[in-house]
Amino acid sequence: MKISIERGTLLKAVSQAQSVVERRNTIPILANVLIEADGESVSFRATDLDIEVVDRIPAQVERAGATTVNAVTFHEIVRKLPDGALVNLTDDSAAGRMSVEAGRSHFSLATLPREDFPVMASSEYETNFSAKAPVLRRLFDKSKFAISTEETRYYLNGVYMHVSESEEGQVLRCVATDGHRLARIDAPLPPEAEGMPGVIVPRKTVGELRKLLDDDEADIAVSVSETKVRFATPEITLTSKVIDGTFPDYTRVIPQGNAKRMEVDAADFAKAVDRVATVSSERSRAVKMQLDEDRLVLSVNAPDSGNAEEELAVAYGDERLEIGFNAKYLLEIASQVDRENAVFLFNSSGDPTLMREGNDTSAVYVVMPMRV
Amino acid sequence: MKISIERGTLLKAVSQAQSVVERRNTIPILANVLIEADGESVSFRATDLDIEVVDRIPAQVERAGATTVNAVTFHEIVRKLPDGALVNLTDDSAAGRMSVEAGRSHFSLATLPREDFPVMASSEYETNFSAKAPVLRRLFDKSKFAISTEETRYYLNGVYMHVSESEEGQVLRCVATDGHRLARIDAPLPPEAEGMPGVIVPRKTVGELRKLLDDDEADIAVSVSETKVRFATPEITLTSKVIDGTFPDYTRVIPQGNAKRMEVDAADFAKAVDRVATVSSERSRAVKMQLDEDRLVLSVNAPDSGNAEEELAVAYGDERLEIGFNAKYLLEIASQVDRENAVFLFNSSGDPTLMREGNDTSAVYVVMPMRV
Repeated sequence: MKISIERGTLLKAVSQAQSVVERRNTIPILANVLIEADGESVSFRATDLDIEVVDRIPAQVERAGATTVNAVTFHEIVRKLPDGALVNLTDDSAAGRMSVEAGRSHFSLATLPREDFPVMASSEYETNFSAKAPVLRRLFDKSKFAISTEETRYYLNGVYMHVSESEEGQVLRCVATDGHRLARIDAPLPPEAEGMPGVIVPRKTVGELRKLLDDDEADIAVSVSETKVRFATPEITLTSKVIDGTFPDYTRVIPQGNAKRMEVDAADFAKAVDRVATVSSERSRAVKMQLDEDRLVLSVNAPDSGNAEEELAVAYGDERLEIGFNAKYLLEIASQVDRENAVFLFNSSGDPTLMREGNDTSAVYVVMPMRV
Repeated sequence: MKISIERGTLLKAVSQAQSVVERRNTIPILANVLIEADGESVSFRATDLDIEVVDRIPAQVERAGATTVNAVTFHEIVRKLPDGALVNLTDDSAAGRMSVEAGRSHFSLATLPREDFPVMASSEYETNFSAKAPVLRRLFDKSKFAISTEETRYYLNGVYMHVSESEEGQVLRCVATDGHRLARIDAPLPPEAEGMPGVIVPRKTVGELRKLLDDDEADIAVSVSETKVRFATPEITLTSKVIDGTFPDYTRVIPQGNAKRMEVDAADFAKAVDRVATVSSERSRAVKMQLDEDRLVLSVNAPDSGNAEEELAVAYGDERLEIGFNAKYLLEIASQVDRENAVFLFNSSGDPTLMREGNDTSAVYVVMPMRV
C-alpha cells in the first residue's frame, strides 16, 4: 500500500474511526484501525466488536493494499502534523511497519496483519429508509438523557427506536427511560420505515451517531434488522449491534389523565430550580414545588446547610398542590424545551408528572415525584 | 449584620476567597468564609491555616457585624444569581442563620460563630516593597513549572524567592527545581527589597497569587518575613506561611562552561518534539537529539509501537553531539520562550544542558539529560 492524502481530510476520517476504539483493550488488534486503499479512495475502519465505523475518503493511491496500525497513536500523529501537509502512507508488510511521512517528519509504526482485523459480518437489513440529519438529531438528542446507566437493566441502556401510533398517525419514535424519568420523541414516519422492527440502540452508538448528524442538509441512510442497525452518509458508515433484550411496555408509564396544568417559562424555571438546589446536599437533591393560583414556590430544605426558596409567576388555575422532584431530573427535562413554554401536567403529589413543550405532543417527558 | 452589595462585585470577592478553601475538610469552620461588615465596606476572609485571603469591597452597610457561612455553597448561590441583582445579606446570630436575598430568591444558610474562625496572626514583616504585577507574573509564571511534587522533598515544593547577585548587579530572583530541571528567573531588585530574607513560596500560594496579577497596571505590595509572605492589592490581601526548610544550593547545578551552542526557533522545536514523542510509551518519553552542522535530528525509538524522526534547521557549528531528554521537560522549557529563539548550551551527552532566550541571562533553564 502506498497512498497520499491531505492532512485535514485524513484527520477527520481518522478522528471518527478512532473514537469507537476502546482505550483499555486486552485484544491488541482492537486497538488498531484498518486502512484499506484501492481505486481512488482509502477507508479507515475501527471496531469494538459491537460498533464498527468505516470512513471512506478520496486519496491518491499509488499502490493498493491494506494494513492496521494503532488507532490512537496514528490519530495523534496526524493531529500534530501541520495543516495542509501532504501525508504519505507506505506499508512494508515484510517488516511489519507502515511509514507516515509529511515534510521533514518520518514515522514508522508497528502494524498487525489485516487478516487479523475482525470485520463485522455483513447483514441482511429488513428495513431501509432515509432521514434528514436534523430529524434523527432531534429524536436522539432529546431522548438520550434518560438512558439508564444501570448495567443490570441492560435493556434500558439505550434508546428504543420503533414504529408507533400517535394522534397524528404512524410515527418513528425514540424512547428512553431509567425508571425515574422517561422521554418519548416522535417524528413523521418515512414511508419505507413501515414494518421496521423495534430496536434498542446502545448508548455508545447514540454518541457515535451524533457525529454524523451535524450537517443539516445531510441525508442519512438508516438500515435496521432484528440484531443490527446501520446509519450511513456517503463517507461514513456506522454499524452497531442492538441490545438483545425487550424494552418494557413504556406506554403504561405515561400518565393519561393528568389534568392540573402549569405553564412556565422553561429557562426561568430551570434557573430557579438550579438556584434553590444549591443548598441541598449532593445525594438527595429534592426540590419542593408549591402551586397555587398562578404562583409557583420552589423550595429546598437541607437541615445541615440551610434552606432556599424562590417564587415564579406561572399559569396555573387548579387547586393547591405540593409535589417534590429530584432537582437534576427537573433541570434535565426543562433543558429539553427549546421553543415554547414548558407545560407540566400533574395529577397528585404521588403520581408521575408529564412535561411537554406547549401543546406539542411529539416530545413528551415523564418524571416520577419524590417524597419531600 | 445587614448589608447590600451588587452581585458582580460580590461574586468576584467570594470567588477569590473560596478558592483557598480546601474541598475536604475535617474542621467545619475551615469550610466557611468569614464575612465582616463595618463602615462602608465588607471583607471576605478564607483560610486553609497556611494561606489566608481577605477581599475587601465597598458595600452598603446598614448594620455592622460578622458571621461565617459555607464558602462553596455561598459562592455557588451568588454565581447563580442574575447579573446586576442587588444582594442583601442579613445575619441572625440568635438563629444561627444568614439570609441571602435577591429579587424573588431567598436563601437561609447555617452559620458558625465568627469567634471560631481562625484569623491568621498578624506578623512583623522585615521587608516591604512594591512591584508591578507583570514583574511578579514573569518571576513566578516562568519558574513554577519546575516546582517538585515529591512530598518528601518538601523544601522543593515551592518557588525560592530571594535576593541574589547577577552580572547586572543585585536582582530579585525566583528559582524552582525538582532535581530534573531548574528555572532561574531574575528581575531588577526594588531598592526596598534589599536585605530581604530568602523564602520558599508554596505551590498553592503561587497559584492563588496568580489571580492578583492579571492587571498590568497594578502595584503589588509585597511583605516578607522569615516565616510569612504577603502580597496585597488595594482590595485583596494574600498572606501565606512559607515552607520551613532550606532551599538547596542551586548555583552548583547551573553549568558554567557549556560551550556547544545551538539556536533554534522555539515554536518549531516544541512542535517537532511533540510530534516525535507521539510514538513513545507514556513512561519513558525519551527524545534523542542528534546535532551536526546546522542540522538537528530529533528521534524516538519505541520498540513496541514504532519510531519517529524529524529534522530541523538550527544554528550549530560545534562537533557532532548525541543527547537524550525527557520529552515533557523539553516541551515545558521550550514553551517558556516568548520572545527570541531558544539557545541551548551543551557540554556532553551526560552533562546538564542550559537553555535561555537569545542572549538574555535573566531567565535560565537547566535540564538533565537522559540516557537514550
